[in-house]
Amino acid sequence: MSLLVVGSVGFDTVETPFGTAEEVLGGSATYFSTAASYFTEVRLIAVVGEDFPEDHVNLLSSRNIDIRGLARAKGKTFRWKGRYGYELNEAHTLETQLNVFESFDPIVPEDYRDSKIVFLANIDPELQIKVLRQMKNPELIACDTMNYWIEGKYDALKMVLKEVNILLINDGEARELAREPNLVKAAQKISSFGPKTLIIKRGEYGALMFNGNSMFLAPAYPLETVFDPTGAGDSFAGGFLGYLSNTNNFSESSMRQAIIFGSVMASYNVEDFSLNRIRGLEYREIEERFTEFKRLTFFEDL
Amino acid sequence: MSLLVVGSVGFDTVETPFGTAEEVLGGSATYFSTAASYFTEVRLIAVVGEDFPEDHVNLLSSRNIDIRGLARAKGKTFRWKGRYGYELNEAHTLETQLNVFESFDPIVPEDYRDSKIVFLANIDPELQIKVLRQMKNPELIACDTMNYWIEGKYDALKMVLKEVNILLINDGEARELAREPNLVKAAQKISSFGPKTLIIKRGEYGALMFNGNSMFLAPAYPLETVFDPTGAGDSFAGGFLGYLSNTNNFSESSMRQAIIFGSVMASYNVEDFSLNRIRGLEYREIEERFTEFKRLTFFEDL
Repeated sequence: MSLLVVGSVGFDTVETPFGTAEEVLGGSATYFSTAASYFTEVRLIAVVGEDFPEDHVNLLSSRNIDIRGLARAKGKTFRWKGRYGYELNEAHTLETQLNVFESFDPIVPEDYRDSKIVFLANIDPELQIKVLRQMKNPELIACDTMNYWIEGKYDALKMVLKEVNILLINDGEARELAREPNLVKAAQKISSFGPKTLIIKRGEYGALMFNGNSMFLAPAYPLETVFDPTGAGDSFAGGFLGYLSNTNNFSESSMRQAIIFGSVMASYNVEDFSLNRIRGLEYREIEERFTEFKRLTFFEDL
Repeated sequence: MSLLVVGSVGFDTVETPFGTAEEVLGGSATYFSTAASYFTEVRLIAVVGEDFPEDHVNLLSSRNIDIRGLARAKGKTFRWKGRYGYELNEAHTLETQLNVFESFDPIVPEDYRDSKIVFLANIDPELQIKVLRQMKNPELIACDTMNYWIEGKYDALKMVLKEVNILLINDGEARELAREPNLVKAAQKISSFGPKTLIIKRGEYGALMFNGNSMFLAPAYPLETVFDPTGAGDSFAGGFLGYLSNTNNFSESSMRQAIIFGSVMASYNVEDFSLNRIRGLEYREIEERFTEFKRLTFFEDL
């Protein structure tokens, strides 16, 4: 199946207790598409500025990502600067420069419009809607968002959610979106907004999937070295939807395996800055860590 | 097998966003022994004052807990007062009155000294040592502690840990004890202090067991109603050690099942104030929730 993503491609400057990285390749669509590229054909929609180096474009192409939807606009590329403390779960944004993203009007290339799965990465819900309006009958729409949009563009976000099958957010965002402190109740409420599947990303505590009446709990992989959490959520989404796109099977059982593949990609991603770890994985490594997840969570029945 | 616990028995006053409970039965040994009583014979060592009602003693006896080690001293019973916010993971202690606990000198009844499993609940490490000195060759020693003792009685605590097989603490305490922010590395360091098994209790995020070279990740049961987290950690320990005592099998596989039984008991405990929920469970309910944990975490192999 074909998988389309719209999101950011840009430069990140990151400080963690273990080091810093300046102006490295980042962005939600970059992490997502790189992670998903191990499983399926990915089509990218994003915009970069005149300062975006050809090397970065080549990296995406080398992963067989279809970059015909990567627009180049006059001006500077999107930039994000953030810091993480020892509690690596939360990023403290120091600076966001939208640059060319500010006037981004996403055009879905004609060839992309039949994509079966669509991922709306964490961008302005109004842009998310614009992309959806151009699609021909996708089978599965997944979406990410954040407190900034929940607070600032609640109505537009609610419009997007009506059409979305799967929402991926974190605990706090789920509680805020549903205006309900209990996660189980929040999930029920969010389901009434549209998405029948809610995936809650909890960083070092793993992920939680509410899928209709069923719940699934996946741990995060306990790492000896976590270097940089930037892009973990998007790598997770990339592994998750990449696997679903590959199997073309949206059953509960397949969704659960997809959650584990998402967790695998996120766990590799945080082992190094930028895409350094996930740009050159072997598929064997992905399968090995999947098996490791099984070993970590298995217990005998009664 | 026989299971001995030393800890507190007292009165709790608790405020949660869902209500308050005043001067209700609480204490680490109370929660532990009640939870463990569904699995095995429990022997209790604790002290109460003259104001401790016979009804509470009868509740413990009715669970077949051996209370010959429950001393009654002149003065008032131990009291704790705490508050929880919407983030129910952390208790804010408002007041602790040690009362008769202040001069507690635990005497292990002659009949208790051959107990095969010992649980040293979260009390002064000097009292924990006193209990251990009276035991005849226990097969398994488990212990709980907290930041208060890590900071105030580090040396005594290190002495206890030398003899302990299993340490049960939370994330922050593990990091503080090992002086190491990474949990995987912290576990390795704590193992060098004595306990070959480290169980990290993470509240709503479940539990993590480091057992020799093996790791096990267990989720918490996602509840629609969490009323009062007080005693969750001790109920967890009670289910965990109660099950091990019942099976008399300390293999990795058995320990993993025990972690799930601990999680089951903790999940029931937080559904109501005090011991209201776990004082009258049916064993069938415990098994049902164990099976539910299996359903919540299962995914197919590759």
